[in-house]
Amino acid sequence: MTKPGDLVVVGIDPGTAATGYGVVSRSSEGRLALLECGVVRTTSKSSLAHRIREIYQEIETVLDRFSPSAVSVEAVFQGKNVRSALVLGHARGAILLAAALRDLEIHEYSPREIKQAVVGNGNAAKQQVGFMVQERLRLQSPPSPSDAADGTAAALCHFVMGIDGELSGVLPHRFARRPAP
Amino acid sequence: MTKPGDLVVVGIDPGTAATGYGVVSRSSEGRLALLECGVVRTTSKSSLAHRIREIYQEIETVLDRFSPSAVSVEAVFQGKNVRSALVLGHARGAILLAAALRDLEIHEYSPREIKQAVVGNGNAAKQQVGFMVQERLRLQSPPSPSDAADGTAAALCHFVMGIDGELSGVLPHRFARRPAP
Repeated sequence: MTKPGDLVVVGIDPGTAATGYGVVSRSSEGRLALLECGVVRTTSKSSLAHRIREIYQEIETVLDRFSPSAVSVEAVFQGKNVRSALVLGHARGAILLAAALRDLEIHEYSPREIKQAVVGNGNAAKQQVGFMVQERLRLQSPPSPSDAADGTAAALCHFVMGIDGELSGVLPHRFARRPAP
Repeated sequence: MTKPGDLVVVGIDPGTAATGYGVVSRSSEGRLALLECGVVRTTSKSSLAHRIREIYQEIETVLDRFSPSAVSVEAVFQGKNVRSALVLGHARGAILLAAALRDLEIHEYSPREIKQAVVGNGNAAKQQVGFMVQERLRLQSPPSPSDAADGTAAALCHFVMGIDGELSGVLPHRFARRPAP
């Protein structure tokens, strides 16, 4: 449930096999809430073109249901090989396209920035991310699977780092802003 | 001009800065003709999301104007670095998506396969590709710039390699089919 004045951000952690997303709102009083999170899975038995079509169409549905004011997408990703970078690029392309065709604000944060913003440690483990997402959104358990938690963390990161160009102060910890690695 | 019974293939050489394309028809008598070729250019001053939106929308327009029976896309591409593979992946993702959303047949050929099919030499230079595209389509000069020639070569390649699952025999040279490198 969102009210007028609420800001809604869709966070996305792109992947060809599993794209995680989380939809987070912030009320005018600064209260954060998780509206939905989930994972789009595709099978490697399908062609790459069909997999990215599936990702695109699912993300379109999420964007159209929640009409966010911004989309926060996990940016890349170091040290993988050329082949996996290329394949990941296809999935990211489809996601950015869905947002761009709706003229949505698009923000990109590195995994390190997201962990820093949400956990307070740019090297945090996956479990810690899930735990802090749970804490900050007052959930009964971390979003599962971890891709959904990572998508939600990307949305949270934008509330900490991106909005109004300054730290928002709605989260308990404050961090110095850091450049992307 | 196409007639009933003509097969139309759109060939595409994806790139973020320049995506070349060529639209080639084959008449029922086996005569090949170039209907159009061109390049979609984007500026690095735009965000990646806006660049791929531009590529997507231009390719959409080409597909909708020519209603091809297949799309032939240049597949990757060795030895570049992770960063450029990722960026190229975004552009390819947008192109494959435009085709997949129209339920078009999508074929992918490596640069080597395309050169082999069009020039008869998998290591052919760019100029040779342009020259053979000119020859085979009876043009007054090679398509320019070379991106447009490369997109056109991808379409030609599909006529040689892909249609009916066998060599089409409409081109003067016959080649053994080779697996992608």
